[in-house]
Amino acid sequence: MELNPLPGFRDFFPERAARREYLFARWRESARRFGFEPYDGPPLELTDLYRRKSGEEIVAQLYCFEDKGGRAIALRPEMTPTLARMIAAQGASLPKPIKWFSIPQLFRYERQQRGRLREHFQFNCDILGESSVEADVELTALLIETLISFGLTAEDFSVRVSDRRLLSAALEALGISGGEARGRVFAAVDKLSREPREKVRERLRESGIEEKAADDLLDLIGSRDLAQFAARFETVPEASERILLLQRFMGLIECMGLRGFVEFDPTIVRGLAYYTGIVFEAFDRKGALRAISGGGRYDDLLENLGGAPLPALGFGMGDVVLSEMLTERNLWPARLDDGPEVYLVLVSETLRPALLALGRRLRQAGFRVDYPLASSAVGKQFRAASQRATAAVVIGPDEWPRGLVKIKFLAAREEKTIHISEIETELHALRLRRAQAKPRGTS
Amino acid sequence: MELNPLPGFRDFFPERAARREYLFARWRESARRFGFEPYDGPPLELTDLYRRKSGEEIVAQLYCFEDKGGRAIALRPEMTPTLARMIAAQGASLPKPIKWFSIPQLFRYERQQRGRLREHFQFNCDILGESSVEADVELTALLIETLISFGLTAEDFSVRVSDRRLLSAALEALGISGGEARGRVFAAVDKLSREPREKVRERLRESGIEEKAADDLLDLIGSRDLAQFAARFETVPEASERILLLQRFMGLIECMGLRGFVEFDPTIVRGLAYYTGIVFEAFDRKGALRAISGGGRYDDLLENLGGAPLPALGFGMGDVVLSEMLTERNLWPARLDDGPEVYLVLVSETLRPALLALGRRLRQAGFRVDYPLASSAVGKQFRAASQRATAAVVIGPDEWPRGLVKIKFLAAREEKTIHISEIETELHALRLRRAQAKPRGTS
Repeated sequence: MELNPLPGFRDFFPERAARREYLFARWRESARRFGFEPYDGPPLELTDLYRRKSGEEIVAQLYCFEDKGGRAIALRPEMTPTLARMIAAQGASLPKPIKWFSIPQLFRYERQQRGRLREHFQFNCDILGESSVEADVELTALLIETLISFGLTAEDFSVRVSDRRLLSAALEALGISGGEARGRVFAAVDKLSREPREKVRERLRESGIEEKAADDLLDLIGSRDLAQFAARFETVPEASERILLLQRFMGLIECMGLRGFVEFDPTIVRGLAYYTGIVFEAFDRKGALRAISGGGRYDDLLENLGGAPLPALGFGMGDVVLSEMLTERNLWPARLDDGPEVYLVLVSETLRPALLALGRRLRQAGFRVDYPLASSAVGKQFRAASQRATAAVVIGPDEWPRGLVKIKFLAAREEKTIHISEIETELHALRLRRAQAKPRGTS
Repeated sequence: MELNPLPGFRDFFPERAARREYLFARWRESARRFGFEPYDGPPLELTDLYRRKSGEEIVAQLYCFEDKGGRAIALRPEMTPTLARMIAAQGASLPKPIKWFSIPQLFRYERQQRGRLREHFQFNCDILGESSVEADVELTALLIETLISFGLTAEDFSVRVSDRRLLSAALEALGISGGEARGRVFAAVDKLSREPREKVRERLRESGIEEKAADDLLDLIGSRDLAQFAARFETVPEASERILLLQRFMGLIECMGLRGFVEFDPTIVRGLAYYTGIVFEAFDRKGALRAISGGGRYDDLLENLGGAPLPALGFGMGDVVLSEMLTERNLWPARLDDGPEVYLVLVSETLRPALLALGRRLRQAGFRVDYPLASSAVGKQFRAASQRATAAVVIGPDEWPRGLVKIKFLAAREEKTIHISEIETELHALRLRRAQAKPRGTS
């Protein structure tokens, strides 16, 4: 038997599965606090859906195949096309704004992709039906608060914000016009965080941008100074309008107390062609500026895919980079396994009926309970208890007939004898102590 | 654009997605209370893994295809083969018993399958490394307690328990021996809950079972009386041993207070060939005895698949039948959407900074908060609030400068003016009232 999962796929043994549950629970809770509702679609769609959005070249990156019915099918590489399809089907009847989140597993399969993951999970949040900048602020705030909920701070990450339309207007003013030239410039600028300025300058020159314009552009977008942009483009109406919008964006973010997490950065253009306004990426401030999350406004996409026009914006946040960050920063909770709170130790097999009845009673009271499933030495039971649980309750032939049990707090190595009617109270107190002992970033 | 999902797949719009979240949360919580740990594998495996377990004929039911690397791949139709693979890879280093659960989406694709779902979600629980009947009891108890957690009672469902080895021994004693004849009899008996006795009798005759033996068999297994079995097979050691085991099983279930949920039913054989001991199915007592869940012991499977020998048992419970039952019995919680608790109504756009600051404060305190993302008439905001939230907090130009807000409890149509420092206290009280108002079967 082949023991490994398919290349690029992960097995989730309990420790990794518990971490995944922790991420998902935080993601869900963050979205819920912002009034977002869950949705999901199938993990498979017609390949055509992705081709319509991203063009023929996307097919080379898809995990796609032909099904038994002869349909060209792909495992979803991203969630937005499914979202667009669902909104096209039922969006007209839904009250606006639509605020939805999802946590899909996404797939890709490039042939030359040895050693890379072919799947990951992604937290997706989208707002549909709202064109105001307040929606951009809300979505960015959700992104920031989600990362904060894991214990990350403004020293750990920043959200870099730009505006595709501002950059277009600036290029126009610098004499770089025409969709094709602009596309090449966007692509070159997109590489600024990964490539030296000289290399990008060269790319701009190769794209037919004149030396003076390329230097102007690089100076301008290198400054990350919205005021400098404002002064420079005072007389360019389209640019001024977008600068005002960004200033309003920053002002509202400030009202939420989140200004310290956000920077204006005109080098953020986002590779994907469909963004139409404010775009943003969250970066790890340490780990060589890894992107943790990214998104922006895509007001034309739903109509372009064949649905009714509807302003829209969204972001995605993957599980892989975020997990790496939490590991590096030591931000996983000490106890995230939701493992048993109490292990019932059975001193004599004749007391098994008592153990089963007590086990049921405690589980019905909401406690997580474990015990031996076969006759087992008491020492071995204590080892199992120490591995799995926080407390042990000892059911012994001397105590039990008198209505007593020993309760041992395993980490503290303390024990006491209590009446069986007091077990729930002791376990509630223990749960409270555990909850209060949790590290930063957890609740 | 094609608006529908692929045939046999479901879109999860928010209401359905919220129900799915509710099922998953209960499943997870039930498993955790029994000390089970989460695991998961990839949604795709080599087709060969399923062929090894179920033979070549399974391929006709698989959602299978060839990937870009030329591998024969299948979307997982069940979780056990993945579990067996993972245990074969790392099981030797894990403390026993292994108690694992998972909630995979499963897939199948038969060509002649119009109108049937091609995917569903399934709660899977397995115990590995424990051969004692206490493990069978524990797993059955988890199945029962899971259904109880949804508000289902012994009037709604029963778990029918049998033993493959008891039936084999009984057949042997009735003169029906040989693996092939036994297989045909198992298949005929398996149909007893769906077909009239006469039809099954005919099938038995066609399988070469003599008239007398067929009638004997049908009388015997029709009785559902373990004592009758015991009397009949007193002198057949293998049968007596299994009857003792089943009696012990029933006794332990009784210790847990769950005897009323369990019946002995020798017609339960479970179609799958790999079961080796106690098997069980949970049935809806009303809806024409639909199977809600099923499982049993499969002690030989891991070794047969090429892993180390390890006793094992498990069950699966799908989301589709369970959801239908909860709908029919009206057991979905009245509020399962985890929607916003409070909607902030903005009377004047000049107060948006106050709204954003208050919104953040309440979200940081753990409340689910919604508010308008654009300038909007107060009446329209109240309609949105009523659709989505339990309370509205009105931020108005008269009250706010004096440190006051109006809080409206939307269902009760009550309102009062409070100091802004009291909002959290009011919302906590509201949360408590909501929690206490939940219907049976929810916590």
